[in-house]
Amino acid sequence: MDVKLLNPFIEATCHVLSSMALTDATAGTPYLKKDARARGDVTGIVGLIGEARGTISMSFTESCILSIVSTMFGEEVTEINDEVKDAVGEILNIVSGQARQKLETMGRLLKGSIPTVISGRNHTITHITRQPIVAVPFESEKGSFTIEICIEE
Amino acid sequence: MDVKLLNPFIEATCHVLSSMALTDATAGTPYLKKDARARGDVTGIVGLIGEARGTISMSFTESCILSIVSTMFGEEVTEINDEVKDAVGEILNIVSGQARQKLETMGRLLKGSIPTVISGRNHTITHITRQPIVAVPFESEKGSFTIEICIEE
Repeated sequence: MDVKLLNPFIEATCHVLSSMALTDATAGTPYLKKDARARGDVTGIVGLIGEARGTISMSFTESCILSIVSTMFGEEVTEINDEVKDAVGEILNIVSGQARQKLETMGRLLKGSIPTVISGRNHTITHITRQPIVAVPFESEKGSFTIEICIEE
Repeated sequence: MDVKLLNPFIEATCHVLSSMALTDATAGTPYLKKDARARGDVTGIVGLIGEARGTISMSFTESCILSIVSTMFGEEVTEINDEVKDAVGEILNIVSGQARQKLETMGRLLKGSIPTVISGRNHTITHITRQPIVAVPFESEKGSFTIEICIEE
């Protein structure tokens, strides 16, 4: 996967969290994901299809996403309920949409599927492809989270 | 969602399990999914995009998928390892591919994204859409599993 394709996702993630949840997030060093070690308590997934097949996922720890949605909703949220899952889907929808707009200006046309959100303590995420999967860890004052991206060439 | 679109997925699921895992599966009565109660220990997800956005997921209990892959591999598999996750992705890839071929003959053109497989005991699956999501429970001699389908109109 061309690493130039990563930046639109990183920029969109930072922009969306800043504007929707007043949260400054900083991307760490991207790495190639070689196994399913990345874990989360809540994960959003969007399939990407167009000139290529792809996928993007965004995995949060429970404490991180509860802190983010508490800011979004303006009230303390203490459990992973339907509103939290909807919010994860919405965050990912907007990240995916903004990133795909930038990719389009780079000549790469991809569409996004309906987002799916998985909730379950400490689950693992595996993308079924022979091509490299890039993981980007993020740190924020609300906790850490990870996005994973694969776009087949 | 047009219920006629369901049958290709049900037929493909039965056909793939029969041919790949010598497993006879029977579809129960489809129902509209109104909350995230559907759960599984291993779930495969494929995004669908074309004339519409959609998603299909397939959720297995641990005992059911271990029994299925033990038959596929011809040896007893006792834990959810990378080979099991790959097998779930492959089953879903083929189910999605066969169903989409039939949908194409019905004039509905959809492509599938890279499959993602989630592993984690008793997780929940939520598709983020305002449109109906149809769940189809299956029974087989190896245990029960559920597919969930949404294709936006």
